[in-house]
Amino acid sequence: MATVLELDGISLNEKTLQDIITRTKHYALLHGVLIRSTESPGDSERVHYAPIALFPSLVPRDALAKATATQLHFNKMMHMVSYDLEFLQKCLCNLIKVDDFNKSLWDIVQVVNEEGITQPIHLGMFRNDYMMNMKNVTSVDPSVDHAHSDSILDGLQMKQVEFNTIASGSAGLISNVDKVQRFSLTLAGKQFNDLQIPPNNPAHGMARGLVEAWKAYGNKSACVLFVVLEPELNTLDQRRLDLEIFICDRSVPLKYVTFKDMTNRGSIRIKDKALIIDGYEVAVVYYRTGYSPKHYRSERDWDTRLMIERSKAIKCPSVQCQLAGTKKVQQELCRPGAVERFIKDPELARDIRETFVNQFSLDMGEDGDEAMEIVFANPQSYVLKSSREGGGRSRSRGSCSLVTIPTVLISSLY
Amino acid sequence: MATVLELDGISLNEKTLQDIITRTKHYALLHGVLIRSTESPGDSERVHYAPIALFPSLVPRDALAKATATQLHFNKMMHMVSYDLEFLQKCLCNLIKVDDFNKSLWDIVQVVNEEGITQPIHLGMFRNDYMMNMKNVTSVDPSVDHAHSDSILDGLQMKQVEFNTIASGSAGLISNVDKVQRFSLTLAGKQFNDLQIPPNNPAHGMARGLVEAWKAYGNKSACVLFVVLEPELNTLDQRRLDLEIFICDRSVPLKYVTFKDMTNRGSIRIKDKALIIDGYEVAVVYYRTGYSPKHYRSERDWDTRLMIERSKAIKCPSVQCQLAGTKKVQQELCRPGAVERFIKDPELARDIRETFVNQFSLDMGEDGDEAMEIVFANPQSYVLKSSREGGGRSRSRGSCSLVTIPTVLISSLY
Repeated sequence: MATVLELDGISLNEKTLQDIITRTKHYALLHGVLIRSTESPGDSERVHYAPIALFPSLVPRDALAKATATQLHFNKMMHMVSYDLEFLQKCLCNLIKVDDFNKSLWDIVQVVNEEGITQPIHLGMFRNDYMMNMKNVTSVDPSVDHAHSDSILDGLQMKQVEFNTIASGSAGLISNVDKVQRFSLTLAGKQFNDLQIPPNNPAHGMARGLVEAWKAYGNKSACVLFVVLEPELNTLDQRRLDLEIFICDRSVPLKYVTFKDMTNRGSIRIKDKALIIDGYEVAVVYYRTGYSPKHYRSERDWDTRLMIERSKAIKCPSVQCQLAGTKKVQQELCRPGAVERFIKDPELARDIRETFVNQFSLDMGEDGDEAMEIVFANPQSYVLKSSREGGGRSRSRGSCSLVTIPTVLISSLY
Repeated sequence: MATVLELDGISLNEKTLQDIITRTKHYALLHGVLIRSTESPGDSERVHYAPIALFPSLVPRDALAKATATQLHFNKMMHMVSYDLEFLQKCLCNLIKVDDFNKSLWDIVQVVNEEGITQPIHLGMFRNDYMMNMKNVTSVDPSVDHAHSDSILDGLQMKQVEFNTIASGSAGLISNVDKVQRFSLTLAGKQFNDLQIPPNNPAHGMARGLVEAWKAYGNKSACVLFVVLEPELNTLDQRRLDLEIFICDRSVPLKYVTFKDMTNRGSIRIKDKALIIDGYEVAVVYYRTGYSPKHYRSERDWDTRLMIERSKAIKCPSVQCQLAGTKKVQQELCRPGAVERFIKDPELARDIRETFVNQFSLDMGEDGDEAMEIVFANPQSYVLKSSREGGGRSRSRGSCSLVTIPTVLISSLY
């Protein structure tokens, strides 16, 4: 039978490939790699397997190790960005003139800071997205299978394209994907040692973060509040976090509410600014919504967001931290001296800078004109991203920046 | 809020109970406790959680330990029953006069034995079903919550009601239920130590059985063949076995076929009676079908079953072993001297006998009349079962026996 896929020297025919696909899908189902059905997104009892790559993509070991080691410093930098109002304002001043959504968020920042901070602790749960970039290669020959060629591997580097600061998804879904892909590779007859597919359970780390924040709040009867969309395809992704919290500390009270629930039933206790829902004090607000204008149905929902930010609950994220995740901030961080404003160690600053892709403003004016010239000279290498994006989903109005698009891999590090 | 459930002294109100149910369902989904949807049984990519008890039922520790310890001897007895043609014939002679299905199976036994055995090894994968019985209690007061009352626990004993020898399901589904129920109990605030909910992974034991049989066949390129129904709600249950085989030994070739596939494409190699499908030699035939008349659509399917039995593949189960699982055989084993025909150790024989419930024939004649008198005196304590049953699903024609029905628990031991 004819070969339909070459996997690192192993030829797979159609029948074998289909058999691997079927067994891998079942493996994914049995290991919780699940999303709700698009046909019945409100039915949490009927699910199907989440879309996954059949085989893992190749990433040079050193590149992954470097990105992982740099991540903590990256996170700290973004933390400092969130609380540097001067820098944030400078990044966002043009954006908020034209974008109502980010303007509303910025207004909350100003109100909360003028009133004085009630909760000095905040929790950041980030997802930093990378693409693989080919060093010194400007165009890619599509007839060559770069991803599985050894010689090309040395030329690959990881380039950071998006820093997600709110509702960062897939940590739960991804937590068993290493097992799934070990299974599929073995079915294909590929030899590997376990270090080549490192275990990856980001949901556990995120759950630990939520538990630590809950402890820091200092009231064991206060709850961790998941503020979720309804319907939401990614419910199972969220529930995995829930289970990991259970593994970390069985005593953490958990509640799930929608933004609408908070608007209808939430309140602030006057004496101490505690956030209250259904009689429960809230220790930590974990947003899985609020990153898109459509999540705020009316001014009342914006009042709710303001109420939460004013409260002494620990926010994940605070509205400042959410704003730090916009593309516009990323673009500003590319400018000379910006990273160094936050990271004093020149070596660390260089490591962070090395992960940056070239980002170009498409604002009216000289910057924008230059960017368009570069792009039109090599259009297949670029992708258009909105600078107002936070969670990486909304792609509508607002001024734009560009990231280079290299090969085929999108990877995430937690 | 009013209490809707008392769990061993813990009062649960409606809201708390609903919260526990929701989180437990998600836990079950994320841990592979899945079945296909009844609305789309052919769609293996869309599933929902399998029905499970929210909390575990209580079983006295000693009773469980005794049943577990006795199980291996029980299995050996059933193995000997399978290969004692004289005993089998005595048990089944009346049944096969009136039941075409068991008659067809028995005809195969005779042909295969007359021709001479080609494969001395067979694999038995059994499920022995128990119900909880109240010692010296003839009627149960429904207003008392017996299952969760300490005093009543001492009076409970496990009574064996069905021995499944073919296509014994749920081993895969059940393999994470201990985790699910630990989760739900904890959510309810119930304290327990882990020994009270012993780990239970019967799929692993069954997979080991299949791998051992595959090794015993002696040809590493021959496959383990799952013969399955299509559509089949229990696909995920079967796939868990598949994964456990992978954990035991990655090199075992696995194939899935339907009975129709075998009829259309299966053959026996003349020189050595090897069973062949799609060019592959079959080491082990694992039936997840074949236990109901409707699985045999025509005489051609019966010819296929005969072909498989004649082959040198190891059968799980052989047709003789399948017949040993009928209720009629169980009923005959209750008669004095029957267990002792196979188990010479009087203590072991007594232990096995102690698990038996009273089984009564409803055949025409003196036995049947006596049984009806006992039943009509206390009808709520009995259930009607067909003596032709193997897999425990078909409940139509044939002569009948009875088992006492005690409290609410149905449990399975592997």
